[in-house]
Amino acid sequence: LISFGERLAARMAHTESRLVIGLDPNLERIRQIPQFARAAPPDAARDFCLEILASCGDLACAVKPQAAFFECMGAPGWQALADVIAQAKSMGIPVILDVKRGDIGSTAEAYAQHLSPSGALGADALTVNPYLGGDSLDPFLSACDRHQAGLFVLVKTSNPGSHDLQDLVLEDGRRVCDAVADLVNRWSDGRGPEGSWSPIGAVVGATHPGDVAHLRQRMPRSILLLPGVGAQGADPAKLRPAFGADGMGACVNSSRGILYAWEKASLPADDFAEAARQAATDLRDQLAGLV
Amino acid sequence: LISFGERLAARMAHTESRLVIGLDPNLERIRQIPQFARAAPPDAARDFCLEILASCGDLACAVKPQAAFFECMGAPGWQALADVIAQAKSMGIPVILDVKRGDIGSTAEAYAQHLSPSGALGADALTVNPYLGGDSLDPFLSACDRHQAGLFVLVKTSNPGSHDLQDLVLEDGRRVCDAVADLVNRWSDGRGPEGSWSPIGAVVGATHPGDVAHLRQRMPRSILLLPGVGAQGADPAKLRPAFGADGMGACVNSSRGILYAWEKASLPADDFAEAARQAATDLRDQLAGLV
Repeated sequence: LISFGERLAARMAHTESRLVIGLDPNLERIRQIPQFARAAPPDAARDFCLEILASCGDLACAVKPQAAFFECMGAPGWQALADVIAQAKSMGIPVILDVKRGDIGSTAEAYAQHLSPSGALGADALTVNPYLGGDSLDPFLSACDRHQAGLFVLVKTSNPGSHDLQDLVLEDGRRVCDAVADLVNRWSDGRGPEGSWSPIGAVVGATHPGDVAHLRQRMPRSILLLPGVGAQGADPAKLRPAFGADGMGACVNSSRGILYAWEKASLPADDFAEAARQAATDLRDQLAGLV
Repeated sequence: LISFGERLAARMAHTESRLVIGLDPNLERIRQIPQFARAAPPDAARDFCLEILASCGDLACAVKPQAAFFECMGAPGWQALADVIAQAKSMGIPVILDVKRGDIGSTAEAYAQHLSPSGALGADALTVNPYLGGDSLDPFLSACDRHQAGLFVLVKTSNPGSHDLQDLVLEDGRRVCDAVADLVNRWSDGRGPEGSWSPIGAVVGATHPGDVAHLRQRMPRSILLLPGVGAQGADPAKLRPAFGADGMGACVNSSRGILYAWEKASLPADDFAEAARQAATDLRDQLAGLV
């Protein structure tokens, strides 16, 4: 049984890709594509994501569906999310479900069912929010152990407002995000041998290159998931310190920069799949050139 | 147009109740009730919650459905959640949807649609997680302004692990949860006149009575939502400091202690609705006696 961390690292090596494609179906933008202009919203979101998977899936070490964009459409949206996850899994692409959940006791157990192969979604990994502390993550950690699944804990997020809490300085000199990183290490301990990639990864915004380098050192066994490239303006060229000497240990998410690449390339919306593939290829190659 | 804070305070006065009934449908336990023993899981969850609303709704100043227990059943579960919310609203009971969401930019906007009357759910208020900072809450705050809706920001949660991050001491002497409380005040500023209840409330665990008193002072315009009574063991008698001189300003959640009251009362599962009403009455009266 291979842990999620080792499985993701193997996929990164096999595909020679450190690119995670974020699936954030924004209806207003999808509606510009003639074939989706009149579809029901959940159908448009699902079919758009399936076309992106078909066009770009082989370029990605993982995909990251964003639950909010499905959830806002109610039950049919939730079904569309399940369909998209099932298709990605059938293509052998690891699925990091971006839900940023965090809750306690029996509630966290209910959320952790998203990691169960017999659950409604069956994701390979979840993003989780650490604000409620260690015991709030215990049910998620147990689910990881049972299902060889993974977590990406929010450590330092890509938005400017991440400064408000995550950068507050503690009396011992650490910042709040450093304290979270130290908890991530604690959760990694005992999950796989020394030197292996832990199933417990961390979200660190690519918009803060200094923090990327620092937090890479601070969580040596965690794969970093780096959002913020593309629409949020982070420069991939500055991300070399995210990767270890072996070129592993980090993957870079792009969502809007790939999904809606036709807009930036001034191409007809009909060409969305080709434009997405070109943008994904460019970013994958740029990341491969770093390591 | 009346703000959510003032609306909830008016309902508390009108019903003479500071009790929030949490709707956490746990299938294993519901299955003990003969009428739900063989129903499909989402139907059992929905119908159980509808019976609780019918039995106890008039005793509650608000109800708090917990999204996780519906979401874990996939699309049909999400539909059951929508049905439960619609029924509570048709009974005039404010709905605090417990989702603990928190995300950035367009993703937060998608989650904030849960507060839109034209959205899939149409909740009156949401619980939100502050870890991502101020800009992550902006779309939720805008939705509150547009729809006279409310938020309850996680400040100090009821679980023991809340100590891990929320109690860390900053170099300026505040704890992390104090810093969040100060942000809550900032978000309340300008939302309603001085002396009115803000639409931006705060979650403070009833399991920490000292923190309840302290945080009550620190967020003078925020209604506190206090979980932890019942299954988590907090003593309602210690909660007097949560309420202002006028007896307003706080409401106390109980979920399992009411929903599954028949178990503790050693009654047949068939009597779940009456047992729930008795438990809800007892807690409502105990809280009314405090103020």
